Amino acid sequence: MNNIDLSSEQYYTDLALEARDLVRGATGQEIAGVIEDKQTFPYGSITIIKIEDEAAEKVMGKPRGTYITIEAPELKYKSPEVQLSVAEALSEQLSNLLHLKGQETALIVGLGNWQATPDALGPSVVKYTLVTRHLFKHMPDAVQSYLSVCAIAPGVLGITGIETAEIIRGVVEKVKPNVIIAIDALAAANINRLGTTIQISNTGIAPGSGVNNRRVEINFHTMGVPVIAIGVPTVVNAAVIGRAVLETYANKFSGGRQHPVYIQETISDVLEPFQGSLVVTPREIDDLIENASRTINRGITMALHPRVPREELEALIS
Amino acid sequence: MNNIDLSSEQYYTDLALEARDLVRGATGQEIAGVIEDKQTFPYGSITIIKIEDEAAEKVMGKPRGTYITIEAPELKYKSPEVQLSVAEALSEQLSNLLHLKGQETALIVGLGNWQATPDALGPSVVKYTLVTRHLFKHMPDAVQSYLSVCAIAPGVLGITGIETAEIIRGVVEKVKPNVIIAIDALAAANINRLGTTIQISNTGIAPGSGVNNRRVEINFHTMGVPVIAIGVPTVVNAAVIGRAVLETYANKFSGGRQHPVYIQETISDVLEPFQGSLVVTPREIDDLIENASRTINRGITMALHPRVPREELEALIS
Amino acid sequence: MNNIDLSSEQYYTDLALEARDLVRGATGQEIAGVIEDKQTFPYGSITIIKIEDEAAEKVMGKPRGTYITIEAPELKYKSPEVQLSVAEALSEQLSNLLHLKGQETALIVGLGNWQATPDALGPSVVKYTLVTRHLFKHMPDAVQSYLSVCAIAPGVLGITGIETAEIIRGVVEKVKPNVIIAIDALAAANINRLGTTIQISNTGIAPGSGVNNRRVEINFHTMGVPVIAIGVPTVVNAAVIGRAVLETYANKFSGGRQHPVYIQETISDVLEPFQGSLVVTPREIDDLIENASRTINRGITMALHPRVPREELEALIS
Amino acid sequence: MNNIDLSSEQYYTDLALEARDLVRGATGQEIAGVIEDKQTFPYGSITIIKIEDEAAEKVMGKPRGTYITIEAPELKYKSPEVQLSVAEALSEQLSNLLHLKGQETALIVGLGNWQATPDALGPSVVKYTLVTRHLFKHMPDAVQSYLSVCAIAPGVLGITGIETAEIIRGVVEKVKPNVIIAIDALAAANINRLGTTIQISNTGIAPGSGVNNRRVEINFHTMGVPVIAIGVPTVVNAAVIGRAVLETYANKFSGGRQHPVYIQETISDVLEPFQGSLVVTPREIDDLIENASRTINRGITMALHPRVPREELEALIS
Repeated sequence: MNNIDLSSEQYYTDLALEARDLVRGATGQEIAGVIEDKQTFPYGSITIIKIEDEAAEKVMGKPRGTYITIEAPELKYKSPEVQLSVAEALSEQLSNLLHLKGQETALIVGLGNWQATPDALGPSVVKYTLVTRHLFKHMPDAVQSYLSVCAIAPGVLGITGIETAEIIRGVVEKVKPNVIIAIDALAAANINRLGTTIQISNTGIAPGSGVNNRRVEINFHTMGVPVIAIGVPTVVNAAVIGRAVLETYANKFSGGRQHPVYIQETISDVLEPFQGSLVVTPREIDDLIENASRTINRGITMALHPRVPREELEALIS
Repeated sequence: MNNIDLSSEQYYTDLALEARDLVRGATGQEIAGVIEDKQTFPYGSITIIKIEDEAAEKVMGKPRGTYITIEAPELKYKSPEVQLSVAEALSEQLSNLLHLKGQETALIVGLGNWQATPDALGPSVVKYTLVTRHLFKHMPDAVQSYLSVCAIAPGVLGITGIETAEIIRGVVEKVKPNVIIAIDALAAANINRLGTTIQISNTGIAPGSGVNNRRVEINFHTMGVPVIAIGVPTVVNAAVIGRAVLETYANKFSGGRQHPVYIQETISDVLEPFQGSLVVTPREIDDLIENASRTINRGITMALHPRVPREELEALIS
Repeated sequence: MNNIDLSSEQYYTDLALEARDLVRGATGQEIAGVIEDKQTFPYGSITIIKIEDEAAEKVMGKPRGTYITIEAPELKYKSPEVQLSVAEALSEQLSNLLHLKGQETALIVGLGNWQATPDALGPSVVKYTLVTRHLFKHMPDAVQSYLSVCAIAPGVLGITGIETAEIIRGVVEKVKPNVIIAIDALAAANINRLGTTIQISNTGIAPGSGVNNRRVEINFHTMGVPVIAIGVPTVVNAAVIGRAVLETYANKFSGGRQHPVYIQETISDVLEPFQGSLVVTPREIDDLIENASRTINRGITMALHPRVPREELEALIS
Repeated sequence: MNNIDLSSEQYYTDLALEARDLVRGATGQEIAGVIEDKQTFPYGSITIIKIEDEAAEKVMGKPRGTYITIEAPELKYKSPEVQLSVAEALSEQLSNLLHLKGQETALIVGLGNWQATPDALGPSVVKYTLVTRHLFKHMPDAVQSYLSVCAIAPGVLGITGIETAEIIRGVVEKVKPNVIIAIDALAAANINRLGTTIQISNTGIAPGSGVNNRRVEINFHTMGVPVIAIGVPTVVNAAVIGRAVLETYANKFSGGRQHPVYIQETISDVLEPFQGSLVVTPREIDDLIENASRTINRGITMALHPRVPREELEALIS
């Protein structure tokens, strides 16, 4: 139990917060090179984790940088009040990462596959995005208080036959944005997080990472501009649930004794045929995607256009 | 391990075949009042289970009647050849249950919620159904080789506020069909079955039974006409996966010893927040629904219109 | 030009307001048996037309009863402020027709075909409807300030093979509602009305009336309970546009002289192949349906649950 | 009547065949610089028009190059036999334009907006496209008989804020395809063509050209590789119907005399509010898009992979 391999399927999580908990749960100690800050807001909490050096990168299985996690358990119940509060928290955190002066161009990238419901978060956000970039040429007065915003939903490798990073890089070279905001559905380790947690990071993102087929990453290194990633867990990989069940049971029954090889074998036996693509998700996954994408879009819109009155923005995106 | 409670969430399956395996796995014996026959076809097997008396009903947790299970592992790979072969097997089995003379009216009922992808099988079949009933009045010559077929997708209680059985009963009293064919997404106990198994039964169906909120049943008793149910597993309840993992592990590690109370507690602990609605499903659930509904529609169409040339039917439904 | 045949395809409109204008345009006189009242609200006007006797029924081509038309040109621009104002106007007019005491059950019927975008208004409203009827049994306290509301989207004859009125009648006999509110996409005579006009009437509705294949009507006579119809024009029949163009041109060019036979022939020649199903609609028909259905749902919800605080309702339907 | 302005809204058509008919109808003469060939196939005809010089470009309002028009009136009735025959005709014509050696990479570009049904043809074809490019690296043996094919649906300016040509150019610079095949919904001048005509050209395409807001063109000049455009008419602009009705009427009533200024005024008066975006389309536009995109995809797939057995291809795309 001391040596948790966060790269194994059983421990897979896209959330830095969960990776930290898994590592600390195993070792019972603070993690060197990982610092953390926590605050609250009316409907939940905000945890800021910084992975500061290479050693911490390895232990955490995540690139160094800042990971902000907004947790709002009530987000699950489609309440406009909760949604607004979370969108405001997201907007504030995003603003802190963006440091916009107002003359920039932001490119929103909706990762994922709109033909696979649990993976449709990114394209759904793009559908709602308020784009303005094309108006600056012909209607500059109408958008003078706005940031220049554009958006694409590049699709997934299985649909396009092209690495998603290649498509985005091609568009970036034409559009020359100052920042990319990439949205993707995430895999969590804990079902409580489905539709209730938002992670914002400045480290970029590897599309499909939760699906066991890691693709070329979308980050400052590959894109040449800062990449802010925003994600919401929409699934827990089935192998993670299997492992969690076994550990919980072992803690109750056999005083915590487990047999890692048997755990691996068990998970393979039970989950074999669809391995990698089998996920745990609510039946109402369509609703979850709809609500999460609206909340994210609201938060992004507020952060990108701080000089536009709130009511005006609400009118344009609702 | 001897007393399996098939009504508990951990053992939930809509498939009689799996219920039989669970019971026999626990007892190691034939089940009194349950008889079985098995045959093969090019891409799989067909198992016919008959539950014959009240005692067997109780043990199996399913009403008495005939349950036909078509298993075709390759159905998962969208092959037209496999799909056609399975549709033919379905058509043949369905014909055996229907005993049509050609003058009857069949009502296809697509159960489930088209706004929740894993639950959208029934409405998707209705979308593809070849309806003819309305043509008998104004174009009788055009449909003289056809059976009179009509179809509804009544929705689910949470969307309509009306028990699904009430809606169907209301329509049945107007349309006066000779038989109802009800299609619904099922919950299996084994992930191998997702999208690869079709169950046909003459016992009717309880909508939402896999979701832990059993509704009024749709069967001969409530509808006044025979009800044939056709279903394909689209999910495995998360609790079932939890239990399966624990059992498999116990067989490897502790010689099969398990602690039922701890198992129950573990599953509750890990899966609590969404309990009942948390499911295991492939990420590509949209594709699974599309393929399964096309296969079922093909099988039903062939069974209902035996006098119409195959090519003509294919042209109308593809 | 004196004898306008409102039942001909060229003059087809589902709006009583337009029928009146067409008749008066032709005769230049008040119509006996038709009385009218007009008022305004911040974003438009409300016209109440009453058809009072059989003679007026014939001239107008509409059954006797009250037709309320809300006109709000700005509704076309997805503004939340306009949408709210129109929803309030709709709510008030609907309340006047409903006279609810609070103990009734209302059945919302979403007519039309969700697989044909211009015809999907009714099913789209049902998707958003706040249903409560099923909660009165198990959670009576939670809904004590609410009216009992249920909803169905019965489909169209071509998909179900069953007359829509039969399906609804079957459901009505089970649910025994006190009132039916039927929503349907309408055909107007003037493109200005697409997405900007709402008609409410207490006369019931004939599904598909704008499509030249009149179906059994859904009204007090066929249902046994009052039927309030709510509709928004989503299309103008192509033949109506053809006729309008010819008349406008004749007024400019030949001093208004027209040749009715040639007009008919011309329209047949140009529009033949799809006749009846060819419509004029905005390219952005998907948006029009989405906006109109949200506005209607808001208005209905406010009218049905007057004792529930506005914020609570907004939270539940947004 | 002698000087037809094909750039005016009333005469707008994306089809070279219709442009030729309009010009010849006005002048009654062959058009210099335009040559034509016609052949038939079981379910229709194929017309090949070549615009050969600058003068002909001007008269026709289309860039010089080859325009192949497949007309198949029965394509409207979803018959698999007709669909296959048309797909084969498309495949043959496309092969003639492509001259593939088998080592090339083809980029399929689905133009248009999947959120506006009449404009969703391109994205719908991409959804069905058999992409192979990503398999050449990791599974070269599996695809050795296949061409390297990739696909994108870049969206429209109003959704992305980026000129579509910019996005495609960015992707082209990364993927370096040998040819682009761009699919788009077209506007015709005659409603008979809706869903029954396919135009293939080697001249590229201007997205949104039928919508009165011409965008940067996608052609050899802007992309640096040959661009084959494939389109199916899904709409007729409302102004075109207006003009056609007036002309037809004038021919009947006033011996063909028309008043061009009054025609323009009439069309403006009747169609003003939505001008440019008002279209004539069948109510069943969703079906039209589905059928047309499947037919086009079949034709493209056969043309791109001539060495793969037909049954294998059918299995992969159906």
